[in-house]
Amino acid sequence: MKFASDNWNGAAPEIMDAVVRANDGSVPSYGGDALSAKVAARFNEVFEKECKVFFVSTGGAANGLALSVMTPPYGMILCHEQSHIQMDECAGPEFLTGGAKLLPITGHGGKLTPHAVQKALAGFPHRPPHGAPASVLSLTQGTECGTTYSVDELSALSAEAHHAGMTVHMDGARFANAVASIGASPAEVTWKAGVDVLCFGGTKNGCLAAEAVVFFDPQAAQDFEFRRKRAGHLWSKMRFIAAQFDAYLKDDLWLKLAGHANQMAQKLSAGLSAINGVDISYPTDINEVFPVFPDGIADALRTDGAEFYPWVTPGDPADGKMQRLITSFRTTDADIDAFLVAVEKHVKSQS
Amino acid sequence: MKFASDNWNGAAPEIMDAVVRANDGSVPSYGGDALSAKVAARFNEVFEKECKVFFVSTGGAANGLALSVMTPPYGMILCHEQSHIQMDECAGPEFLTGGAKLLPITGHGGKLTPHAVQKALAGFPHRPPHGAPASVLSLTQGTECGTTYSVDELSALSAEAHHAGMTVHMDGARFANAVASIGASPAEVTWKAGVDVLCFGGTKNGCLAAEAVVFFDPQAAQDFEFRRKRAGHLWSKMRFIAAQFDAYLKDDLWLKLAGHANQMAQKLSAGLSAINGVDISYPTDINEVFPVFPDGIADALRTDGAEFYPWVTPGDPADGKMQRLITSFRTTDADIDAFLVAVEKHVKSQS
Amino acid sequence: MKFASDNWNGAAPEIMDAVVRANDGSVPSYGGDALSAKVAARFNEVFEKECKVFFVSTGGAANGLALSVMTPPYGMILCHEQSHIQMDECAGPEFLTGGAKLLPITGHGGKLTPHAVQKALAGFPHRPPHGAPASVLSLTQGTECGTTYSVDELSALSAEAHHAGMTVHMDGARFANAVASIGASPAEVTWKAGVDVLCFGGTKNGCLAAEAVVFFDPQAAQDFEFRRKRAGHLWSKMRFIAAQFDAYLKDDLWLKLAGHANQMAQKLSAGLSAINGVDISYPTDINEVFPVFPDGIADALRTDGAEFYPWVTPGDPADGKMQRLITSFRTTDADIDAFLVAVEKHVKSQS
Amino acid sequence: MKFASDNWNGAAPEIMDAVVRANDGSVPSYGGDALSAKVAARFNEVFEKECKVFFVSTGGAANGLALSVMTPPYGMILCHEQSHIQMDECAGPEFLTGGAKLLPITGHGGKLTPHAVQKALAGFPHRPPHGAPASVLSLTQGTECGTTYSVDELSALSAEAHHAGMTVHMDGARFANAVASIGASPAEVTWKAGVDVLCFGGTKNGCLAAEAVVFFDPQAAQDFEFRRKRAGHLWSKMRFIAAQFDAYLKDDLWLKLAGHANQMAQKLSAGLSAINGVDISYPTDINEVFPVFPDGIADALRTDGAEFYPWVTPGDPADGKMQRLITSFRTTDADIDAFLVAVEKHVKSQS
Repeated sequence: MKFASDNWNGAAPEIMDAVVRANDGSVPSYGGDALSAKVAARFNEVFEKECKVFFVSTGGAANGLALSVMTPPYGMILCHEQSHIQMDECAGPEFLTGGAKLLPITGHGGKLTPHAVQKALAGFPHRPPHGAPASVLSLTQGTECGTTYSVDELSALSAEAHHAGMTVHMDGARFANAVASIGASPAEVTWKAGVDVLCFGGTKNGCLAAEAVVFFDPQAAQDFEFRRKRAGHLWSKMRFIAAQFDAYLKDDLWLKLAGHANQMAQKLSAGLSAINGVDISYPTDINEVFPVFPDGIADALRTDGAEFYPWVTPGDPADGKMQRLITSFRTTDADIDAFLVAVEKHVKSQS
Repeated sequence: MKFASDNWNGAAPEIMDAVVRANDGSVPSYGGDALSAKVAARFNEVFEKECKVFFVSTGGAANGLALSVMTPPYGMILCHEQSHIQMDECAGPEFLTGGAKLLPITGHGGKLTPHAVQKALAGFPHRPPHGAPASVLSLTQGTECGTTYSVDELSALSAEAHHAGMTVHMDGARFANAVASIGASPAEVTWKAGVDVLCFGGTKNGCLAAEAVVFFDPQAAQDFEFRRKRAGHLWSKMRFIAAQFDAYLKDDLWLKLAGHANQMAQKLSAGLSAINGVDISYPTDINEVFPVFPDGIADALRTDGAEFYPWVTPGDPADGKMQRLITSFRTTDADIDAFLVAVEKHVKSQS
Repeated sequence: MKFASDNWNGAAPEIMDAVVRANDGSVPSYGGDALSAKVAARFNEVFEKECKVFFVSTGGAANGLALSVMTPPYGMILCHEQSHIQMDECAGPEFLTGGAKLLPITGHGGKLTPHAVQKALAGFPHRPPHGAPASVLSLTQGTECGTTYSVDELSALSAEAHHAGMTVHMDGARFANAVASIGASPAEVTWKAGVDVLCFGGTKNGCLAAEAVVFFDPQAAQDFEFRRKRAGHLWSKMRFIAAQFDAYLKDDLWLKLAGHANQMAQKLSAGLSAINGVDISYPTDINEVFPVFPDGIADALRTDGAEFYPWVTPGDPADGKMQRLITSFRTTDADIDAFLVAVEKHVKSQS
Repeated sequence: MKFASDNWNGAAPEIMDAVVRANDGSVPSYGGDALSAKVAARFNEVFEKECKVFFVSTGGAANGLALSVMTPPYGMILCHEQSHIQMDECAGPEFLTGGAKLLPITGHGGKLTPHAVQKALAGFPHRPPHGAPASVLSLTQGTECGTTYSVDELSALSAEAHHAGMTVHMDGARFANAVASIGASPAEVTWKAGVDVLCFGGTKNGCLAAEAVVFFDPQAAQDFEFRRKRAGHLWSKMRFIAAQFDAYLKDDLWLKLAGHANQMAQKLSAGLSAINGVDISYPTDINEVFPVFPDGIADALRTDGAEFYPWVTPGDPADGKMQRLITSFRTTDADIDAFLVAVEKHVKSQS
């Protein structure tokens, strides 16, 4: 009954094996090795386009460094008010960009809409150099609320952003879950829908520590290697990140791992919905389920050993009562069943 | 009919005279002169407390540098979504603090409430080191909407802030107008109401370029001199800022200038309210009036030579139709009368 | 006998008069006024070239903001080890550029040579992204040691810099003194000699607070207005800086003021040289004289009321015994005569 | 014949095994797991003192983040002109500290002396707030030149630094090699000798990516967790760094690995010294050897497949002819023998 976070899990066996295998021999450091080059090229295939890829070891580094290349330091990044860059990176984007402003925007289910973006821009009129110029629209796919953007939604948002002179950043910490859920291709969900830079996550989905920043316009990536280095994010033994992605991308492992987590979340969500008095707050598109339990149940479940966090957000629709349950590539049917049994038990004993 | 901004005006004669007088002789630079020391001491009298005062030449410098001393670079500054630090300083606070986050909060009439602050904090739970820790509550007195906080309102907000571990910053670009309007003493409106640091504006109210950052706890100001210097805000010929404040504070000139501007705004506001079809959006506490004219009137007035800007804000209540009229120490009864006549003329000709 | 610093003086009468005159009327703020436009155009004439000019109020702001446009935040700025940006701005350039590195270089008399630049670059090999890439060569004209670069010296240094992929910044806090001393035109000493951006100082030479950043390639200046704003350096009542430059540039006032200061320094230098036991450390090209007095003399002079600072620098050639005497537009023959008499008196009484 | 860098090697088998073992189960993320706590406590034993330890994945992150806690953003860090923080981190320390200045100091063999520190401070006099105040003395142990500081040398430098109001940072990327070479205890080489913060390296000596920042005064470390997070350096699956240090510190593995590398360097150094015409530039204290070969030999060796880099530094004593050979835990006697044979062959064939 471990639903605290996808990053409480370790690595998928295929990925750990690849790391062990990569340990052979003396190879150039800082990404000059053959494996790093091979894996970078593999991204071109996955995304059906020549792109420029950089590896780092955390999602915060990926987001902040990507944004630092996309915005001038006096620019403004529009994002959802519940987005990770706004809520969970300790003002990292402000720091790594050299001082850019984040403009948090409200939206149901963790999602932005073209209308909400328009409205935000309208209230922050372009008066150079007084207001920080809007430079980047950051979207999260899948979102912090476990929802996803459809290809059409993404295209409309990107069009709105480009029209307003912004580029589009996608925080893809759970990109694999989103792609597995939507059923569109990686290309369709990104550059074909107008995304300029993708932070392609591996860590939450079975890697040890592996994130890739993917620039769909290689020309726009020139600054990145310097910014990664000075922020201390250039690994000397880069082969060990490359190896993770090598296994991750092989035979669609990334989609298999994510697909399993999604399926477990579906089962959990359906099971909870069927229990009297339990509400599910958002559509369960990926591996996150946000139930609101009757009073006392969450505590009782924790006493039973279940692990999950309360989920409090700006403009909280559930008045502090929402919980977040996360499934992963390691979650089993038995985990779900045990949890559902426990919930039912407590709900019954209350009524 | 010049109502574009208070800073379209030059300097009050008393202040310009003081600058001219200060030109005599060779005196130590960087604030080591006798006049700078005398004027700093004068602030202690005005605020009935030993405080530590620093002079700079712009409001953006005053706000950003004050905040840089008040927050760690990874902290979060709560402010109104229409505040100057959020809307008008080109991400200056983010830059000058070394990357702190601004959390914009909605509130009617440019004002925050304890409840709104509580709600914002509740939605941004303290989970060190993930979320940026709330470090400063920034209040604007008088506000961007021409309103003021009462002493009780300030005290309640400060209590809320201190309770949550924040210190209180006051953007007082129009502090003189607010004090003149409220009728409380400078001390009552600031440290006695829990304000920790005040940016005391002079420029908008008759100075050439003079802002004072006032720390009510002198111990908390140690960093300031270094931060001011490295940001290029330490004047070598500091006497020329000190001279402005010398005149500004003498015989309550600051309150007289602001009081006049306020009175002119009252007259303008009352006159406009009396005209059929003209709505005034906020209470006219200080020197700013926010009318919504019938369609076409604003353009007609501009054709007549009237100068004023449209006022567009986040969550715009007037759908882009609000105008902002600002009065100053130089505004005359005749200016107001002429404008009111012009408005009436156009309104009549339309109906 | 006031030789402490050029900024201990106030403003030249012509300049103060211009400020007073500029106080008439209501004009657009933030540089949108007619005077600001007129003065900006005047710079094109002075430099015989269309250039882009920005006004700020301190030399530290001018240098740091200029550099912030010239270097990426991970770049390296080569400068003299005694330069103002290295020694006297409290790490301002590092801050305002967003973290660029300064590489201090040794050189006699405050001057760099092409050979010294080559050697510095050779010891800091280009290995992207490991070493910070050399981005700017910063030269000071006239130098902190009171010397000047000839046009040929500047051209050789600029050629070296451009060859190595750097642009050339000139700290011209005492540019007027240098131009008055060299006798070449402003254009010859700057862009014709390869300088890309000039910080044209007014404050030390009779302005109240006025510095101009001059981009000789207007295209390269795009970022500046945003960076100036967010650092709090955009004046609202810009007319008051413009007015200073209006007077400063009129009828070559700037060169007259500087020429006088230079002449006074020449007289002081010659007078001191003629006194037994007094050594002058550097050529007296501009308004600074660096004597080494026999032991005890400096203290005795200070007791007499003479004002001047000791001058301690990296690799100090005089073992802490050097003094710095600065003349200004206000220095008189009588000031010099009185000082020389005092020196002679003390030297004699010692021997 | 692979002597390019210690980071061209992978991980030691004991360390890779520990990583694999750590993969079991679901554990709290972000360092909340039991292994992270256990390993942190292990550092207290190794250093015979309660200290506060933070893990990151690169040496640049360790140095820059440690310094960011030690210096105000306007402070000045004294370091050797060849130090990694000055030469090899792309202005990372300037960035991560928020703009602190690095003052590079010359010294033979990569080492600073109390006299050199005194001289540097004397040339950069304390004139707040003009000069950046000296805040940190950064020492590298073992140095970039393969030398080490003795305990007495460290104590004298620390005393000098503390006397001048600085704290002492030690870049210990090759700390294991230094400790193995000197034969003193970890405590003796650090806090007992006045070191305040140590960056304890693992990556170059057999870890995959593991560096520990050790604060010997736990009170001084409060900021670190926030700064690490916002820079994107807080790993979610922290167990995988902890596991590396668990193995690294077990049974003195770190000293065994480093001792072997040192021994191989000794053998290489001795062998090269014995060859006619080959000069060794610095004492071979740790795992780096800096030969100057007769002209043509280095190229010939590279043609044979030998891997090593030229070593160019500020004030280069060898005029660009120095090479750097690095040994590691994987270097074998056969590697050394083969290389020495090759050198001898080429030297002979030339004469």
